[in-house]
Amino acid sequence: MGICIQNAHLLYDDRKVRKNVYIEGNEIAAVGNAPEGFRADTVIDASHRTLMPGLINAHTHVYMSLFRNFADDVPFQTWLFERILPIEDELTAEQCYWGDMLNFAEMIRTGTTAFLDQQMFTKSCVMAARDAGIRPVISRGLVGSVRTEEGVVRRWREALETMEYARETGSNATFMVSAHAIYTCSEDVLRFTLDVAREKGLPITTHLSETKKEFDDCMKEHGMTPVRYLHELGLLDHEITIAHCVWLAEEDYKLLARPNVHVVTNPASNAKLANGFAPVARMLREGIDVALGTDGAASDNTQNMFTAMHLLSLMQKGVEQDSVVLGAKETLKIATENGARAAGFGDTAGRIEPGAKADLILVDETAPNMLPNFDIASALVYSATGTEVTDSVIDGKIVMRNRELLTIDEERLRFEIEKITDSF
Amino acid sequence: MGICIQNAHLLYDDRKVRKNVYIEGNEIAAVGNAPEGFRADTVIDASHRTLMPGLINAHTHVYMSLFRNFADDVPFQTWLFERILPIEDELTAEQCYWGDMLNFAEMIRTGTTAFLDQQMFTKSCVMAARDAGIRPVISRGLVGSVRTEEGVVRRWREALETMEYARETGSNATFMVSAHAIYTCSEDVLRFTLDVAREKGLPITTHLSETKKEFDDCMKEHGMTPVRYLHELGLLDHEITIAHCVWLAEEDYKLLARPNVHVVTNPASNAKLANGFAPVARMLREGIDVALGTDGAASDNTQNMFTAMHLLSLMQKGVEQDSVVLGAKETLKIATENGARAAGFGDTAGRIEPGAKADLILVDETAPNMLPNFDIASALVYSATGTEVTDSVIDGKIVMRNRELLTIDEERLRFEIEKITDSF
Repeated sequence: MGICIQNAHLLYDDRKVRKNVYIEGNEIAAVGNAPEGFRADTVIDASHRTLMPGLINAHTHVYMSLFRNFADDVPFQTWLFERILPIEDELTAEQCYWGDMLNFAEMIRTGTTAFLDQQMFTKSCVMAARDAGIRPVISRGLVGSVRTEEGVVRRWREALETMEYARETGSNATFMVSAHAIYTCSEDVLRFTLDVAREKGLPITTHLSETKKEFDDCMKEHGMTPVRYLHELGLLDHEITIAHCVWLAEEDYKLLARPNVHVVTNPASNAKLANGFAPVARMLREGIDVALGTDGAASDNTQNMFTAMHLLSLMQKGVEQDSVVLGAKETLKIATENGARAAGFGDTAGRIEPGAKADLILVDETAPNMLPNFDIASALVYSATGTEVTDSVIDGKIVMRNRELLTIDEERLRFEIEKITDSF
Repeated sequence: MGICIQNAHLLYDDRKVRKNVYIEGNEIAAVGNAPEGFRADTVIDASHRTLMPGLINAHTHVYMSLFRNFADDVPFQTWLFERILPIEDELTAEQCYWGDMLNFAEMIRTGTTAFLDQQMFTKSCVMAARDAGIRPVISRGLVGSVRTEEGVVRRWREALETMEYARETGSNATFMVSAHAIYTCSEDVLRFTLDVAREKGLPITTHLSETKKEFDDCMKEHGMTPVRYLHELGLLDHEITIAHCVWLAEEDYKLLARPNVHVVTNPASNAKLANGFAPVARMLREGIDVALGTDGAASDNTQNMFTAMHLLSLMQKGVEQDSVVLGAKETLKIATENGARAAGFGDTAGRIEPGAKADLILVDETAPNMLPNFDIASALVYSATGTEVTDSVIDGKIVMRNRELLTIDEERLRFEIEKITDSF
């Protein structure tokens, strides 16, 4: 199957330059001239639109879309222990499927083509992602004790079963091993995580240094920063994607600045939960690889990566009192190329070039908020709402065409969501 | 002419409660039961939508939409003196008309029904606002010397001519007297502003304490803060709307906390130009009346007030490290009721009640990013992109219906904008 996207204005190209992009199977086959013997089953006319790599949401919990707008403007402890955990404890695999699907409808509509997730019901996520046609990177959060059935034993067994299920069903899902956080995992669990990640050849993902309390507690308990603690346990020597890093000490920057370590910043969640602003501009100056995420919809009520880019850039300019930091082009790279590295795709995604994954979106350049067309990177980061995305190709398949989702029945989705949330 | 909006979920009401709202002429006639003898020329079915007061953008420069995405990620001095001013100096009244119109297309699409503007070509703005059907509050920025033709003389004459033009043409425009800023206006000009504002019975508007440089220079030159300086000149005893107030000293809070003083915060512009975060939560605690604006599109590349609400709330929670401040309902009031006071409408706008101006919008509750419908205030502030607005009634007239602008030809608009900006 071949797709030809004609007459497209490619991100980073001058706006007057228009090119054709050719997709064969699930990869970009060529940019410019058709590859030999190419036959287009589908031709998309991209006039007046920008073709860009799909955005990569490098940290979220997709099922949490079920909890959106359920518990806002309350203190963190109330939010977590009185509001979120009681309903989360009761969730079923089927409910999570629909929560995942709600998330995917929003992500696809707003230009996200792949995401890195931490889940409870990983098999539901594989199924929902397959049905929606989005590209998932899935991890099952490990917590508790390595020895008990109610701790890591059951969770790791589920993770292995899901990987097997994905393999058997030809899913495009890939996997990571997740240690939830240093305050929910014992040292044992963290060591177990590293062992199985090495054994399976999988990257690790975790939350780290999200709150001041976590930072202070770690200093008290272990006599070192959370970053150094992970380092001492050997986790920073493995391929690892770390969410948050809001609270960092001077020495932490050097420990994080290595090619196998990827930090994912979540500006909306960190601000909304009152954890503050991660030192992203500083991390970038120190050579740390930073990607971008939304976090789950219980703390960042939108899964819109355009909104996340806007917030990231503006917050950093405000915090640093420097209008030059986190410019539009740099912010776009964080949400695409850097996201690809954080999600474990290396340099095979987040870019438009032959051999890269065919995860691409088209963005309308004619909406009033996108005019005048002086600088498309600026327009995408500073002016777009995310709803300017008209078409989405993921894994070589068209999942949205002219703003119509081809893979999700939104009316059915609404019905299912209402049924589930009425029971909360 | 009567409009009945049927079966609407009113903002702040429980989501299960649905009411009818009746509009006669340019006012809300009744909420609930039809007023005696009411005849509907138009009935709008508002099922699955929220009816809310239109948002009020309390500080912008509408013509600056022509400069959107023209000069980003550069230092402030480069931005202003090398990029913006050279093209601004060459602008014509007709170009500004189209710049205004571009702004109005975006504002109407994203739920803004009224705005407070500082303009160079005020007559163009009256004409464009009339054609677009939006409600303008217009001021001509005064700068320079009160005695010279090239200073205040010409500018004030133009302002008076525009007020006369608006009166003659039955425009719904209202006016303020604008002193641009303390660093562009001599003491003479500031006194002149107060004199003519008193004489004409008009409120004053100005920029104040936007940058640290302005604050420091004022301390050096006048031996007092910018706020105290305005106070000493008597301007804080008049009805006044003040944009920015990012840099405040302890004593300033008390001086600003009076019913005739309205502060307009512009979170995107302040962050993007690296001026920082205004102490909005603190101002509210001190009893200061705070409204919300976008500023012009050269510094805040979107004129979308939903985006501005989102930024305001998240930035304040992040800065204060308190997840409770600037909650969704409070943020919505800032963008509606407080905006009405800042724009000089008092309590006659920004609310849905009999006698209030018929400036109303409908917002789709069924978009994936708005689900589940647990809390519409949260959804509007934390989840909405602004493009969920489907209908807009301004001054009793329908200007957008099912996302179609009835007053603006967007294809023509695009053509004119391209023609103008190609000449820059």
